[in-house]
Parts: sequence; structure tokens; C-alpha cells
Amino acid sequence: MKIIKSIKKMQQLANNVRKHDKTIGFVPTMGCLHEGHLSLVKQAKLDTDITVMSVFVNPAQFGPKEDFKKYPRNFKKDCYLAKKSGVDVVFYPSENLMYPKGFQTYIEVVNLSKYLCGKSRPGHFKGVATVVTKLFNIVKPDIAYFGQKDAQQARIIRQMASDLNMDLKIKTMPIVRERNGLAMSSRNAYLSPTQRKDALVLKNALQKAKDMINSDEIDVGKIKKQICHIINSVPSLKIDYVSVVNADTLEDIEIIKGRVLMALAVKIGRTRLIDNVIVKR
Amino acid sequence: MKIIKSIKKMQQLANNVRKHDKTIGFVPTMGCLHEGHLSLVKQAKLDTDITVMSVFVNPAQFGPKEDFKKYPRNFKKDCYLAKKSGVDVVFYPSENLMYPKGFQTYIEVVNLSKYLCGKSRPGHFKGVATVVTKLFNIVKPDIAYFGQKDAQQARIIRQMASDLNMDLKIKTMPIVRERNGLAMSSRNAYLSPTQRKDALVLKNALQKAKDMINSDEIDVGKIKKQICHIINSVPSLKIDYVSVVNADTLEDIEIIKGRVLMALAVKIGRTRLIDNVIVKR
Repeated sequence: MKIIKSIKKMQQLANNVRKHDKTIGFVPTMGCLHEGHLSLVKQAKLDTDITVMSVFVNPAQFGPKEDFKKYPRNFKKDCYLAKKSGVDVVFYPSENLMYPKGFQTYIEVVNLSKYLCGKSRPGHFKGVATVVTKLFNIVKPDIAYFGQKDAQQARIIRQMASDLNMDLKIKTMPIVRERNGLAMSSRNAYLSPTQRKDALVLKNALQKAKDMINSDEIDVGKIKKQICHIINSVPSLKIDYVSVVNADTLEDIEIIKGRVLMALAVKIGRTRLIDNVIVKR
Repeated sequence: MKIIKSIKKMQQLANNVRKHDKTIGFVPTMGCLHEGHLSLVKQAKLDTDITVMSVFVNPAQFGPKEDFKKYPRNFKKDCYLAKKSGVDVVFYPSENLMYPKGFQTYIEVVNLSKYLCGKSRPGHFKGVATVVTKLFNIVKPDIAYFGQKDAQQARIIRQMASDLNMDLKIKTMPIVRERNGLAMSSRNAYLSPTQRKDALVLKNALQKAKDMINSDEIDVGKIKKQICHIINSVPSLKIDYVSVVNADTLEDIEIIKGRVLMALAVKIGRTRLIDNVIVKR
């Protein structure tokens, strides 16, 4: 497995791969790898010839009061896991290289960024869209892989790639959960054992909502109320948002119809967790 | 010469060219070609194997009160001139294809867009940066060519390409002038014979400023005053801005030092013309 830190070298490798008619699968990450990331690698290895993973904690997507500095980093372990799962190239650039002095270009996916996490994290998706575009221009993937856990991010990247005519495919892979149901996240590392147990209620609330829909409940107000009720029953949790939206536009809906995204963000202590489920009706 | 209207087909052609180790030179235009555009084609033909020109009047870079609708269009004549000058492919997409329903992704080069034309045309450079990124992703050039007449645009595109790690070169080519000195522009088509004569004062004012600097005048205040004085001596002209700035940052300066951009925008009737010169000291 190659580790590349230089943008130029990464581009040269990508050009070389493409010139030999081989395809590139790309898994962008902020490191601190878990089974969710590795499921993306697995799919990339099935689909493409060369699997590139980037490890870069992107300062542009963190708010001034967010956890950029303490975001978990463990490059040595990441390399071990990446190699074991068959990654061919790890792209690991420095912050100075990615955001040199005078950097000032940003990409905004205007409408889709207004909702859900966009409301509580202003500028977050601008940072995501910008770094992903940069990484796409550096790694030149045929297919790029994103996790459904970050549902809004996946939707935004897909829109951006289409709007900007990026000549690549976006694949969104299902949420990977721990055995108890907790959605895998690098931020789970922040949780105490008690908090991990409390966090299970996210998944349970979404499951209950799904059950309601399966029992033909279509009143979004009632469903949201039930989700909030379940989460609020655990005193350590504080709801950031509970949203039931059109999975394509991310706009609020009143009646369950078509592809629906049920998504929530909750704070446990200082840790912000998200989870979601898509239902079709 | 090929005319391609489909984004997919243009990308396929570009991929094919690159796979055969040939290079692509790209001249983006809004049509209504003049000698300025053709000088870019000439350079592209010297530098690269295949020359692609796009002809697309980009609605996103016009303000609501600007001349999008009446902007001169003459695709037949453009094709004639493009073919004659050796263009290999004209990319000529429709507005619906470039900006389909739901389009919402925009690129902003924050600081450089604040000055000069950015002040009087809010959103203009966002529209330019966005369409150029789209065109780059469609045409996949090795080198893209821009005219120095749009000095701020050229500077912004260069910054964007660098910030977003676009794997291509930007070349800025000198202003092409009519024999009498008027900078070539598609918008010159709007001018009456009298207005064309009056417009010569733009070039003359810049020449006078250059002469002052060559005679060791370094006080920007005095130079700007002289430029304004010359332009205001023609009653049909109305100054939008007269700026003397650092050619790299586009920030105002007080003393002539280093690479300096002297740029101006003037209205003649309803037509807005720009011109500029770079001096080094």
C-alpha cells in the first residue's frame, strides 16, 4: 500500500492509472476508520481496479466552536486497517497543502444545505463540498463512495457532482451499525460506556417510527412526536433536530409519501450524533 | 470541425483524446467571436493537439438588469470563424442542459471577487467561476485560454483552478485591439459610430497613466485623477470605476510598486466597456 502526501504525485498516479484504462475507486475519510469506512473500501474493491482512500481532517467543515482540534486522529491505526482491507493508495495531505495561504474558493450547494444539519452547522456543507471537489480533482475517481449515515452529505455531493458535470459516479452505501444497533461513527470514540448505552435510543426511535409507518401511520406530526418522546425519555440526550423530509429535496413533508428520509441529530454531553433511515411508500 | 451539443458526448471525446496521449486546448467563449477570441485559438493550436472552443452565453453571470437577452449571438458566423482559425471542436450546449431544473451549485472566489467589476456586478464572478468549472469538467482541457481584457476574470479563474487543484494550466493572452486602439469586445457591436470614437478615450487615458508612470509618477491618487479627468472630458462617458491595484491581490494601492493593474469600466449610453493595462515597477 502506497502512502502519498503530495497533491502533484497523487494526480500523476491517477493520470497514470487512467491512461492504462484502469478505474479508480475513491473513499474520502477523515480517518479514525471504522467498519462503515471499510464497507466503502469493500465496495470500491468490487467495482474498480485501484482503491484510493484519503485521510484528511478538513478544517473547512468544522464551525469555530466545533471539535476540529479534538477530532480523533490515529493515522498509524488507519493505515493498518486500510492495508488490511485492501486499499491500494492512502492520500494523506497536510492542512497547509490543502489550504495554502490565500485560499479563498468555496463551493455551495445552496438549497440542500439549508435543512437538517445545515441549520445547526452553518458553513459545514460548504466546507464539505469544497474539500470533496478538491479531492476529486486530485484523486480523479471513476466512482466515489459515501456512507448513508451522513445522508445529507451524500445527497449534497450527488447534487454537486451532477450540477458541476463531474465525470464520475457517486455511490452511497448503507449505514453500518454496531451489533447493538448504534450507527458507526468516528465520534462514538467520545462516548463513555453509559453514553453509548443511552445513544441506542436514536436507533430505537427511528425503528419505532418505521414500525408506525409499516402500520400505515402517514401523519408526519404524530411520527415526529413519537420519535421526540422516545429520545426525551433519556435525560442525558438533547435533541438538535428530528426531521421527516422528502429524501430528494430534503424539504419538510406532512404526509409520508414516496422516498422519505427520517433523520435526527442529538447531543449526548458534548458529543453530537446523527442517525437516519429511508422509507419508501 | 465537429459541433457537439451533448455534455456526455463532449466528455467522451475528451476522454478519448486524453487516452491517446493527446492534449486539449480550450477556449471558452460567449460567441460573437472577434480577433481577441481568435488569438486564444491561435495560441491553443500552437500549444496543444486538439482545440476545443465553447460557445455559451452564460445566464448565471448576468445580473437581472444586465444585457443577457440582447447579448449579441451569431452562431453561424462563429462557426465560420472558428473553422477558419482551426478550431477542432465547438461545444455548443443549450441553457437547459447546462442549468437543468433544480440546479443549485455555485463557486465563489471570495476575496478577488470583491473588487473592480465585482463591486458593480454582484454575483457576476460567481456565475463565471461556476460555468468555467462546469466547462472544465466537460471539456477536460490541459490548457485553458483567457483574454487579459477581462483581467479580473483571468485572475479569478487562475485562483480557482489553483485552490480547487484543477489539473490544468491557465494561460492569459494579451488584449487584442482594433487598429485605433479600442480593446476588442463582443459588446463593441452595441456602439454607434460616434460612440466608437468616444470609446477611444479609455485606451488614451490608460496610455497617459502609463506615460506618467514611465516619467516616475508613483502617486496613485494623481494618476487616477488624471485618468478620470481625461474620461470625463468626453460628455457621453460615465465612469463606473477607475482602479489602480495590486495585480495579484486586486487590492487598492497608494504607490506604484511591483505588478500594478490599472483597470477601468465606463458606460457609453447603455453599453458598459472595460479596459486595462498592467505595469511593472
